[in-house]
Amino acid sequence: MTELPELIAVGVGPGDPELITLKGLRAIQSADVIFTPLSREGDASIALQIATPWIDQERQRLVSLPLPMTRDAGQLRPAWQAAAATIQQELTGRQRGVYLLLGDPLLYGTFSYLWRELHTAANITVKIIPGITSFAAAAAAGGVPLTMADERFVVLPASYETDMLTLQRLLNDFNTVVLMKAGTALPTIVTALQQLNLLDNALYAERVGLEGEFITRDLRTLDLQHRPYLSLVIVRRGGWL
Amino acid sequence: MTELPELIAVGVGPGDPELITLKGLRAIQSADVIFTPLSREGDASIALQIATPWIDQERQRLVSLPLPMTRDAGQLRPAWQAAAATIQQELTGRQRGVYLLLGDPLLYGTFSYLWRELHTAANITVKIIPGITSFAAAAAAGGVPLTMADERFVVLPASYETDMLTLQRLLNDFNTVVLMKAGTALPTIVTALQQLNLLDNALYAERVGLEGEFITRDLRTLDLQHRPYLSLVIVRRGGWL
Repeated sequence: MTELPELIAVGVGPGDPELITLKGLRAIQSADVIFTPLSREGDASIALQIATPWIDQERQRLVSLPLPMTRDAGQLRPAWQAAAATIQQELTGRQRGVYLLLGDPLLYGTFSYLWRELHTAANITVKIIPGITSFAAAAAAGGVPLTMADERFVVLPASYETDMLTLQRLLNDFNTVVLMKAGTALPTIVTALQQLNLLDNALYAERVGLEGEFITRDLRTLDLQHRPYLSLVIVRRGGWL
Repeated sequence: MTELPELIAVGVGPGDPELITLKGLRAIQSADVIFTPLSREGDASIALQIATPWIDQERQRLVSLPLPMTRDAGQLRPAWQAAAATIQQELTGRQRGVYLLLGDPLLYGTFSYLWRELHTAANITVKIIPGITSFAAAAAAGGVPLTMADERFVVLPASYETDMLTLQRLLNDFNTVVLMKAGTALPTIVTALQQLNLLDNALYAERVGLEGEFITRDLRTLDLQHRPYLSLVIVRRGGWL
């Protein structure tokens, strides 16, 4: 056999098991090995849960990869190298593995870090199957448009930049601002929105499509403490419909 | 029957028929009426083509809605009002319609304009099923990450802002810039990228997942004229993997 083993990164979508793509579920069904990242954030087990109806545990092998938290991802290269080595080892003599992630593999996913190591070290063909992002699902569930035809929007991880000046500048330049992983940054975000008089132009969403989904446009009475990691805020300068 | 008729906007994804979600195809299968926007841009027929395997034309009724071009969308309110009236009329006495769009309904889709009219005038419950965006599919097909964990990215319609200063400012502030609908703006975009010395940090993609898909990282030799409307450019300041 001259063909290289193949790893397909499958974005299983934001949480609702029905938001997986046909392409994603078919890749899962035809895989020999199913890799799932195990992180402290709990994303991994959710991705596996979404994929479970398409997995045949008699025939397919499940392999968990212990991986660093996304926030430290760039700094923890040895962990990624070890994961890449495990994948290469597991796929030896096998044709195809899938790597499961929540959302889209190339947007704030763990996959880009792993991919870099596979790219460098391993004889594996890598393919990507895109997934529904949490912000698209939150906008759909919350009933708010993200962009009209002539608008521009920006997406950023909330934990990195949530001060008032940054938010103000972004909201001057963009019609829609999406703050990902808003959980711990929520008090800062809400203070900034208050000062900018934009509290009524924001939507908060957590665990979209999962047990405990919670979506609100009322950030005034929202308890800002102890919100989960899987959460985001969408701010639209021009308001909603 | 006291329940309102229901319209579900279904994002069928960027072009590859397998990138439709399970939720989307099930909504199509259980609809009484299938609405497709007909625009000069040809998006509509592609969305319908993707949905066709899930439509039973014996049982389900197909209705085309003549709609304005996206670029003029905000100005042509009477056309949206007429479409909303048609939908309300078609759904009278029926339980459920779906409205098909390429990509995601809330990102540069025609749906937000229609939704505004339905919201104002019609007794219809509106739901949204998100779809895979063209930029996620282009990144996946082209093999380029969109964002690592601590990065931010911006998405804008290329036809509106493609001058060098705008691009330069965006690329100073954001790791990744996605220019949607790049077709006619491509010569300006490439000139700006040349001046910023970023030509090697760009990917051009057209008709992703469709017949005639074309993706290249070589913008130096790309023929910039007559590129189609369904096209985009992804620029990453830090380069690729």
